[in-house]
Amino acid sequence: MVIEFISVGTEILLGNITNTNARYLAEECAVLGLSNYYQVTVGDNEERLSDAIRTALGRSDIVLLTGGLGPTEDDITRETVAKVLGRQMYEVPEIHQQIQQYFERMGAKNPSSNNWRQAMVIEGAEIVENHNGTAPGMIVPVDENKLVILMPGPPEELKMMFEESIAPYLAGRNQQVICSKTVKICGMGESRVAAALSDLISAQTNPTIGTYAKGGEVHLRITASGTDAKAARKSIKPIVKEIKERFGDKVYTTRESETLEQHVVSLLKRRNMTIATAESCTGGMVASTLVNVPGASEVFNEGYITYSNDAKHKLLGVKKKTLKNEGAVSEACAREMAKGAAKAANARAAISVTGIAGPDGGTKEKPVGLVYIGCCIDGKVWVECYHMNGDRQKIREITVKRGLDMLRRCIRQSGEE
Amino acid sequence: MVIEFISVGTEILLGNITNTNARYLAEECAVLGLSNYYQVTVGDNEERLSDAIRTALGRSDIVLLTGGLGPTEDDITRETVAKVLGRQMYEVPEIHQQIQQYFERMGAKNPSSNNWRQAMVIEGAEIVENHNGTAPGMIVPVDENKLVILMPGPPEELKMMFEESIAPYLAGRNQQVICSKTVKICGMGESRVAAALSDLISAQTNPTIGTYAKGGEVHLRITASGTDAKAARKSIKPIVKEIKERFGDKVYTTRESETLEQHVVSLLKRRNMTIATAESCTGGMVASTLVNVPGASEVFNEGYITYSNDAKHKLLGVKKKTLKNEGAVSEACAREMAKGAAKAANARAAISVTGIAGPDGGTKEKPVGLVYIGCCIDGKVWVECYHMNGDRQKIREITVKRGLDMLRRCIRQSGEE
Repeated sequence: MVIEFISVGTEILLGNITNTNARYLAEECAVLGLSNYYQVTVGDNEERLSDAIRTALGRSDIVLLTGGLGPTEDDITRETVAKVLGRQMYEVPEIHQQIQQYFERMGAKNPSSNNWRQAMVIEGAEIVENHNGTAPGMIVPVDENKLVILMPGPPEELKMMFEESIAPYLAGRNQQVICSKTVKICGMGESRVAAALSDLISAQTNPTIGTYAKGGEVHLRITASGTDAKAARKSIKPIVKEIKERFGDKVYTTRESETLEQHVVSLLKRRNMTIATAESCTGGMVASTLVNVPGASEVFNEGYITYSNDAKHKLLGVKKKTLKNEGAVSEACAREMAKGAAKAANARAAISVTGIAGPDGGTKEKPVGLVYIGCCIDGKVWVECYHMNGDRQKIREITVKRGLDMLRRCIRQSGEE
Repeated sequence: MVIEFISVGTEILLGNITNTNARYLAEECAVLGLSNYYQVTVGDNEERLSDAIRTALGRSDIVLLTGGLGPTEDDITRETVAKVLGRQMYEVPEIHQQIQQYFERMGAKNPSSNNWRQAMVIEGAEIVENHNGTAPGMIVPVDENKLVILMPGPPEELKMMFEESIAPYLAGRNQQVICSKTVKICGMGESRVAAALSDLISAQTNPTIGTYAKGGEVHLRITASGTDAKAARKSIKPIVKEIKERFGDKVYTTRESETLEQHVVSLLKRRNMTIATAESCTGGMVASTLVNVPGASEVFNEGYITYSNDAKHKLLGVKKKTLKNEGAVSEACAREMAKGAAKAANARAAISVTGIAGPDGGTKEKPVGLVYIGCCIDGKVWVECYHMNGDRQKIREITVKRGLDMLRRCIRQSGEE
């Protein structure tokens, strides 16, 4: 079954708000096994909204409208749907009363007369309660196969209504089960990942493999649909296994909710290690990313931001000779920074970053984007050299990803020895 | 002139990502005086994409497509636009070479063959350079009145290209002069800012005032349109003056491109000060935000991330007695951290942060969201206490904003004395 979303609201067309509802609904409908081929945004304009509704009814089974159910004059979704379907509207006394009570609870004594428009319902519609606001939703059967759904625009009203009422309704109608599994890969670009899977991707029907670039990582989502949940889950397994074999230790997790920093923090916890950070061009971003993880304090006590050469020498013991002969952006400096940080913090693990984030400061030998990352685990030091692309911010963000990924690999390696 | 957006990407239809590009483009196009009546999202499917392009060309003057220009097989925007317009495609050797160079810089020797598709251009198109990635954009005149624009989907590529090339192009085409001025406010929520301006906002026609909440700040954009640039600019001035009077030192800048961290770094530069950072719950985010600013090295040499009590004592000289009696999250600790950081780094200015970011660790006396921020300028120390709302990540982000805002106020104050 195909579902189409129509988001109604001039504030979206003016860029005043981001349409997060569309993403929420898309994700939820995918899980319900509904296909979503079109998402359309139109303003609070009767002609264009009517047009969008008619087009959607022509090509999709379910048309889900969000927004334009509010109390102000420019909220015209209800009336426009009724007109397009050739239906009458009538007032529901219970809703009128609920609106009255809602305003009393909120301490507002005289709701504006426009508010009573929210008690008007389209003939033949099933009324859907709104437990987070005053405008009810509606499910309007058009004919045997087609359906129009109206939902309020405010995200907290929409989400609660979808979870409580609309999702169960759609699931019952669709009789489909969808299962999916995520594989997260670090250290390879999306195009290389896709190329390595092209045989699987081009042969796919059910399950399918989707590739998604996510800020320096590539996430693969394997999705199977069917009427039997167990069979769907079983059909995903061999594909996940095959992917893991192809990408080896570039796969860092198959848990949908696990981030790279969470993975690194749990690795450190499992190995009973504390870690110190020593950062130059990232200026605290590596540490701050580790601290994203609740409970990071179990593995992280202190970090050093050594932006100047003096600080690298004073806080981390990088040799003045190294700074003079090799420069601050060098393999030797990254090595001494990592070793020095571990020592200064009395930590078993340390990560160091030194590089040129730009836009100025690059030379022919050491261009903008050149970054050295060092990892020290129990006294052993690895250093890797990277050439990053992009602006200052992007170079620093990707450096953090590469650093955490390297840390993960080094901790694993040192554990195997 | 009417512009329509078509976002291309199955990942949007599956709800894997939020379409933030549409909002960005909507906001920018509104400023350029373009009308946006429709935003459409379709997947990487030739038939449906062709259909969307044809529909858009029938009802809008400019069709702006984003996404689907990447290297993988399912990126079909280029080819589909060419087919719909009945145009040939040809390879541009310069772009081929740029892609080659890009991969060499990235240290990847053998880009997959799919990458070369990004060097293919639609006949008659103006090529738009992509300074943040490999896929170029295109401006394709259809006839005297209609235009198709192709832009890459990744937000950082799209934004840079829009600012550098597409916005100037569209502004020239529209022959409308739009002038705007931004006033940036820190330390007040959007609803309070809007309430303080309600008389101006409800009376507005041209110029208009827009309020935008931007991660802990509120930006006001005053926009005037017309055919005469000088008159438009002149009409903005009294409004900006009035706003500055109403909000006083809560206004930190009226420069569109100046961020709070840039403002703080230039204040420090002007006062010839260096700054040190001492962070607990933010774990390096304050330092990292300062380092966002190119040239931050002139005012920032070193920072300390003191997540544990030991580190606070060892690196910053916070008294063990203070930690024991008052706790790490206390006015006294923030004070000693700021003073200690300035001393350890031999810096005239320092900022310290200590707080409870949650989700665990809160008590009745010291709940999650309690944050102390200290500023030390030439030996004088200020400490402010905040109660932040939101999840761990949001509390830390807002703390950084409040910290930089406080720093700005303290530097100014100390200069006036």
